[in-house]
Amino acid sequence: MGSLDSLHHVSGWAAHDASGQVSPIGYTVRETGPNDVLIKVLFCGICHTDLHQLRNDYGASKYPMVAGHEVTGLVAEVGKDVKGFKDGDRVGVGCLVGSCHGCKPCKQDMEQYCPKRIWTYNDVSPDGRPTYGGFANFMIVDQSFVLKIPDNLPLDAAAPLLCAGITVYSPMKHFGMTEPGKRCGVIGLGGVGHMGVKFAKAFGLHVTVISTSPSKENEARLVLGADAFLLSTDEKQMQAAAQSLDYIIDTVPSPHPLDPYLALLDMNGKLIILGVVPSPLQFVTANIILGRRLIAGSFIGSIKETSEMLNFCVEKNVSCLIETIQADYLNKSMKRLEKNDVRYRFVVDIGKAFESKPQAS
Amino acid sequence: MGSLDSLHHVSGWAAHDASGQVSPIGYTVRETGPNDVLIKVLFCGICHTDLHQLRNDYGASKYPMVAGHEVTGLVAEVGKDVKGFKDGDRVGVGCLVGSCHGCKPCKQDMEQYCPKRIWTYNDVSPDGRPTYGGFANFMIVDQSFVLKIPDNLPLDAAAPLLCAGITVYSPMKHFGMTEPGKRCGVIGLGGVGHMGVKFAKAFGLHVTVISTSPSKENEARLVLGADAFLLSTDEKQMQAAAQSLDYIIDTVPSPHPLDPYLALLDMNGKLIILGVVPSPLQFVTANIILGRRLIAGSFIGSIKETSEMLNFCVEKNVSCLIETIQADYLNKSMKRLEKNDVRYRFVVDIGKAFESKPQAS
Repeated sequence: MGSLDSLHHVSGWAAHDASGQVSPIGYTVRETGPNDVLIKVLFCGICHTDLHQLRNDYGASKYPMVAGHEVTGLVAEVGKDVKGFKDGDRVGVGCLVGSCHGCKPCKQDMEQYCPKRIWTYNDVSPDGRPTYGGFANFMIVDQSFVLKIPDNLPLDAAAPLLCAGITVYSPMKHFGMTEPGKRCGVIGLGGVGHMGVKFAKAFGLHVTVISTSPSKENEARLVLGADAFLLSTDEKQMQAAAQSLDYIIDTVPSPHPLDPYLALLDMNGKLIILGVVPSPLQFVTANIILGRRLIAGSFIGSIKETSEMLNFCVEKNVSCLIETIQADYLNKSMKRLEKNDVRYRFVVDIGKAFESKPQAS
Repeated sequence: MGSLDSLHHVSGWAAHDASGQVSPIGYTVRETGPNDVLIKVLFCGICHTDLHQLRNDYGASKYPMVAGHEVTGLVAEVGKDVKGFKDGDRVGVGCLVGSCHGCKPCKQDMEQYCPKRIWTYNDVSPDGRPTYGGFANFMIVDQSFVLKIPDNLPLDAAAPLLCAGITVYSPMKHFGMTEPGKRCGVIGLGGVGHMGVKFAKAFGLHVTVISTSPSKENEARLVLGADAFLLSTDEKQMQAAAQSLDYIIDTVPSPHPLDPYLALLDMNGKLIILGVVPSPLQFVTANIILGRRLIAGSFIGSIKETSEMLNFCVEKNVSCLIETIQADYLNKSMKRLEKNDVRYRFVVDIGKAFESKPQAS
């Protein structure tokens, strides 16, 4: 266990260059400050963003990089001013580990939009050290960015809620896409998209999965519980479905036309875009003017919303569909993720890798 | 005056082909049915859409065409089931003269989105006759689409409220862009744009006119009462204004980039597009995701909203800035409108043209 006057020694897996290949690494993190929570990591989800960051696809990667921002585990130590957490508590960490606490977004509990937000990894802590993520046995995190995981949520399947889950839950709440009986489409059945289906069902919506791939239909209906399936490459199906949806959750992170999806929206319909697409998307203005439709974006969610979401997941029995993997499978899982060959999130069993190994000092 | 058992003979100005040139025309409209209001037209605004329709720019024009959908005048006769209107009442007609009254939009007082809406001209009445607009001495309109013009509003300056005005008032109300002190940008200082400035000021917003033309600054500030001016071609000004607006009203009807304007929006900012642009517009998804911004469209407004707007205009002393013209200037005004050479709406003094001529039979 760490102590208040010594750095913590951590073991993890880091990429050392843009190959993105990870290998074991040891490093130290700061001593447990008054507001810090030391977390023994047990599980960490793998998000597409991890793949992009490890490979420097955004051009801003710093190495060595310990990725992972869908983290669950147990509290190992708390600082003297920490309230609400104690040793052994089930906790989680998402995309952020810091913000300024003083700006307008922070004051309005929307710290994910704080211009000084600190990313869980590939960023710099207020102590000047690099931030390292959840592909490691320990993390040290300011209490403001630690979430309690309710007892009824399994720590493995809860991990991806902290990015994939909140990314879709937050806009559904913010943009009022929760009215039971309303009709919701989901485009892109990846980690975020499958959570879109699950949350939409949990809110009582009628859910249509929209896909370019007919092979997704059975999965969408039988496994995820979608009410309908629409093959977007079939013009007749698309025309027959014109104006049949109230909301669409668009999770596609690559270039795609918007007009065919706008045409599916009824009056006052909402198209929510969650995928960062490298090139611009386009639409015809008449398709939003005639029907008073809107196109909006949203970025993860606040700690407050994430906490609310975790309780909602308990209440509605929602969690992620995951493939649990061992740490020695990390590099292979990245290759599979690249091809979207995962149902629907890899979660690394970090705890198991350290069962017989020493703890943070 | 017309009678219940005879057609009304009307004199107006029609285009006869895609040259768009108008010349005098005589025609008949239906007798006054139980729900009809016969209106003696006194004023009619000229909207850009009139120009496009007269010249068949949308490819769906039917000739002869009597344009004009910003109409004010006096009730000349009412049908036996008409309630709320009597001879001599000050009234107006906007873009629509009919809808199905049974569909979801109609039932929700959003008949402007009714798929069976009937346009004020270039459409077909339920009686099978073509609809003719306000460039004429009389119109006959179902009572559901007739608006009372409050006594305190001048009939000439009120006419453009029925299209230009409601086009901007409706989305401001619907999308919650009315919070005093919030910062609103207006792009495009035409008929709709100048009403954007006026309504935004009336709602108590801080208003910035954004323009490619430095010559608009004095006009925007001194005549329209804008609080600030931003030259969109000046990158330094645009960068300095990043995230400085809560709302933007975009009235530009030609292709333009959206990303520079999205960058002006603060967190939760709203970009409302009111101009039908013939080619697609594009944006980078990160610009709506990081900041939870939205892009929305809106189409005129309902009769209920228009009535509310007219009362708001009385309360806040809002009306349009117009150039009143005589009917013999119609063709010249169209040429000036083509070059946006108008401050900010031409209104034709239809009443004057018929002062010494016979009334509808």
